[in-house]
Amino acid sequence: MDGTTGTTTQPTPRTRCWWGWGWADAHPGDAECIAMGSLLPGTLARPLRVPRVRDLRIGSPAVEAPPSLAHLVSTDPGDRAAHAMGKAYRDVVRALRGQPGRIPDLVARPTDDREVADLLDWAGERGTAVVPYGGGSSVTGGVEYRGDAHRAVLCLDLTAMGRVLEVDTAGRAARIQAGTLGPSLEDQLRPHGLTLRHFPQSFEFSTLGGWLATRAGGHYAIGRTHIDDFVQSMNVVTPAGTSASWRLPASGAGPSPDRLFLGSEGALGVITEAWVRLQRRPVHKASASVAFADFRDALRAVRTVAQADLTPANCRLLDAGEAGLAGAAQDGSAVLVLGFESADAPVAARLAQAVDLARAHGGRSGTAPAAQDAPADAAVSAWRSAFLRMPYLRDGLARMGAVAETFETAATWDRIPGLIEAVRSEVGAAALKATGHPATVNCRLTHVYPDGAAPYFTVLAAGRPGEEAAVWDELKAVASEVLHRHRATVTHHHAVGRDHRPHYDRQRPDPFALALRAAKGALDPRGILNPGVLVD
Amino acid sequence: MDGTTGTTTQPTPRTRCWWGWGWADAHPGDAECIAMGSLLPGTLARPLRVPRVRDLRIGSPAVEAPPSLAHLVSTDPGDRAAHAMGKAYRDVVRALRGQPGRIPDLVARPTDDREVADLLDWAGERGTAVVPYGGGSSVTGGVEYRGDAHRAVLCLDLTAMGRVLEVDTAGRAARIQAGTLGPSLEDQLRPHGLTLRHFPQSFEFSTLGGWLATRAGGHYAIGRTHIDDFVQSMNVVTPAGTSASWRLPASGAGPSPDRLFLGSEGALGVITEAWVRLQRRPVHKASASVAFADFRDALRAVRTVAQADLTPANCRLLDAGEAGLAGAAQDGSAVLVLGFESADAPVAARLAQAVDLARAHGGRSGTAPAAQDAPADAAVSAWRSAFLRMPYLRDGLARMGAVAETFETAATWDRIPGLIEAVRSEVGAAALKATGHPATVNCRLTHVYPDGAAPYFTVLAAGRPGEEAAVWDELKAVASEVLHRHRATVTHHHAVGRDHRPHYDRQRPDPFALALRAAKGALDPRGILNPGVLVD
Repeated sequence: MDGTTGTTTQPTPRTRCWWGWGWADAHPGDAECIAMGSLLPGTLARPLRVPRVRDLRIGSPAVEAPPSLAHLVSTDPGDRAAHAMGKAYRDVVRALRGQPGRIPDLVARPTDDREVADLLDWAGERGTAVVPYGGGSSVTGGVEYRGDAHRAVLCLDLTAMGRVLEVDTAGRAARIQAGTLGPSLEDQLRPHGLTLRHFPQSFEFSTLGGWLATRAGGHYAIGRTHIDDFVQSMNVVTPAGTSASWRLPASGAGPSPDRLFLGSEGALGVITEAWVRLQRRPVHKASASVAFADFRDALRAVRTVAQADLTPANCRLLDAGEAGLAGAAQDGSAVLVLGFESADAPVAARLAQAVDLARAHGGRSGTAPAAQDAPADAAVSAWRSAFLRMPYLRDGLARMGAVAETFETAATWDRIPGLIEAVRSEVGAAALKATGHPATVNCRLTHVYPDGAAPYFTVLAAGRPGEEAAVWDELKAVASEVLHRHRATVTHHHAVGRDHRPHYDRQRPDPFALALRAAKGALDPRGILNPGVLVD
Repeated sequence: MDGTTGTTTQPTPRTRCWWGWGWADAHPGDAECIAMGSLLPGTLARPLRVPRVRDLRIGSPAVEAPPSLAHLVSTDPGDRAAHAMGKAYRDVVRALRGQPGRIPDLVARPTDDREVADLLDWAGERGTAVVPYGGGSSVTGGVEYRGDAHRAVLCLDLTAMGRVLEVDTAGRAARIQAGTLGPSLEDQLRPHGLTLRHFPQSFEFSTLGGWLATRAGGHYAIGRTHIDDFVQSMNVVTPAGTSASWRLPASGAGPSPDRLFLGSEGALGVITEAWVRLQRRPVHKASASVAFADFRDALRAVRTVAQADLTPANCRLLDAGEAGLAGAAQDGSAVLVLGFESADAPVAARLAQAVDLARAHGGRSGTAPAAQDAPADAAVSAWRSAFLRMPYLRDGLARMGAVAETFETAATWDRIPGLIEAVRSEVGAAALKATGHPATVNCRLTHVYPDGAAPYFTVLAAGRPGEEAAVWDELKAVASEVLHRHRATVTHHHAVGRDHRPHYDRQRPDPFALALRAAKGALDPRGILNPGVLVD
């Protein structure tokens, strides 16, 4: 509050949407939903009503927290409903249709490792399942409970552990609590001139702990983009004790302890804090876009750029459909969005080299490269705005009874063209069969590597009223078969959760499954941690 | 053979030294040993005799291979003696003193995964320990058997699996058998214009499988230098089945299967092949050296270079003692050796930036930067030659009864100056106490990172006749205590083996130990795989 004025100027805090993505006030209104729906034949004439917590039948909790932990625990129905599921399309549809997943009995908000351990001890004694929860942005069923093997479910919300605890400026690293949300993390680092630069699409609504538990993919287009590579050490509270690895720049002492917990999705322990590697804030930035008439040319161009040791911060290839939706091109061109940044030196030369390579493979740049102080390339700006708004539009389409969802993967370059073509044709055919209407299947490459790429697909289709989740499950099953056939991973950065589990089980080497199951048995002998994820 | 001449011009194949490093014919002769010894007060007047296999009392094998596997198995005493130990200083001393480790009963050389699995099955039934063996260059007791819990020991020599099986030129990757030695691996890749560029000091005498099993550190000075980062997929034969991960550029599907086996040192399975990421051969190279009067200035300079996003291929800092030994400087200066390389673009500008940064922190460059076609910087050349000859000189010093060994670690920058100072003073004091003579303790940084560095120490001291290994064990125990106190890892790239095991057990988080032990129990239920390594 400003001391020079008698009235508060602090804005009202924004409210999170309990049933869908992000902020409640950022969702499209009915008119915008109808306008979007009109573009997709076979959708509803009017949007489904925004669901209300009070319409859900939420019973009393099946367990009661002991007095020593009661101050950490909420039994408020709205709180419990908001922690019942993640934010996948099928979660939104279930909420819209009044059929959410099992509502957790309790929501606990511990503030330190000791309280996390106490909650695990108590849950273990009571046979209560514990679902660790960061920002709740899982799109693969990672933060819900399915089935009835446990008498009660405790949602362990880590967001009360949201502080940057230590900063090593000279060594460019910080010790950060797992429940720190993206914007708060960057806000706390900014005074030190440092940044993590981990900006998944969920940035506003996801936490460091969630990124670590799901091996989130981040900002960078190339190379070290998974959060894995930014970890110096981690604290993980397990029912068998707390694992605290040493803070190291690198080590060769046996298999990496951190790498076992990275991607463990809450099944092996609760990540409570980590030392992470930071960078100085970039001061040099430049971006450009390059258009391609032929998508296969664009694929060759982006591979060449990825192999040229130029390390762009952004190097996303949008196919014609994706470029059209994002407003980056309306003439059927594919668009390569390039961005460079550095804290040390100007990046215009590297951008120019990348653009030259892209042109040599059939690209034509629509606009001159934009340096930092120039207006950003129009296609780049259009894409950025669309990127952040996309999940809200997805929820608006869901209200129109449409199927609107994404999935992503990664594969080596030799498989990329065939994989993308097969997903487009087979998922498109399945959607036509399932709904009687043609579907849109778009693709972009969100991350590229010298040896492969991560394609990200968007599916927009009519639904079958009341069966939208089932339609999506049918399409996703077809997509997963295509991925498996092309040896493309079940996920590049969305995690396995419960939705990918059957296909993950087929992809994972059997001996590794044996090892992981044994590790789970040793660390979580009562099987309370996020049951159903990764291993049984 | 050259068809134009009637006589063969093929040189006689060189013989590997069974008791010491590398090639038998590259070892210093008696005169050179004496000359070296004269520089170290307290060493012997004449070198110990080069040991002979026939002087060892090698009994008959305790087991016999079954007829179906007999063609893969050698019982030759020389073969068995050469596979009894790795190549640490203490191994050399034990050989010189006629007290090698337990001699394996059999040496098997399988040629494919099926034969590896058959050998493991047979060994499991017989309770025979299996020690996987690549090039045998372990310096931490990784390839021997200690104790008598197993009736017999089978050394599993993988070098008959030494081929590059597939090359994906466009995707810059290759499928390579684990027993491929460094030079052969590069020879097989060269016709494709590709290179792995993984050049540990042991390059000539170590294999891809050994690098993977020990998380070897490689060529690059910065960032991605551990072999871990070059792995697309791996095949690992375990007693519980073969683990074959998918070939992927990246994945977020649960904890990485490959990362469990990377660094598993043969305790979880036998790595038999891997798809690895390659690069085009560099055509642009440049190097320079920068001298520093003050080592602390040099540390600040190298940190600044490491954080400047310049990605040197070489960035080694030699302290005054190390620079003197290597012939890189004789005036008490520390020397920073810088090298840049690229397949794409000239690197002179990056080198100049790095040199400028180093100068801004108190450095003075002795010679102008050397571009590719110019003669290499003299200090750089001197260092390179010394680097490759060093292990042979170590063995020569061992023959003079000296203690001559190295160890390495890694820590974050905040700990580096104090760590190096403590190792120098405490190991120096311990050597004086143990031998009555002052010792040399030198340090170089072999790898640097934005957030820390990997110091590598060389210890040269007098021994106590007949007790050289015990003296080294005393010094190493002191060193390990210093490392532990400074939270510096027990190893950056030499693996844990049996020598580092007690200190590794203290460093490793207890819950991770539980998980690893459980994984070992699941994959190797009879406990035959490299017993004594990592977990019991």
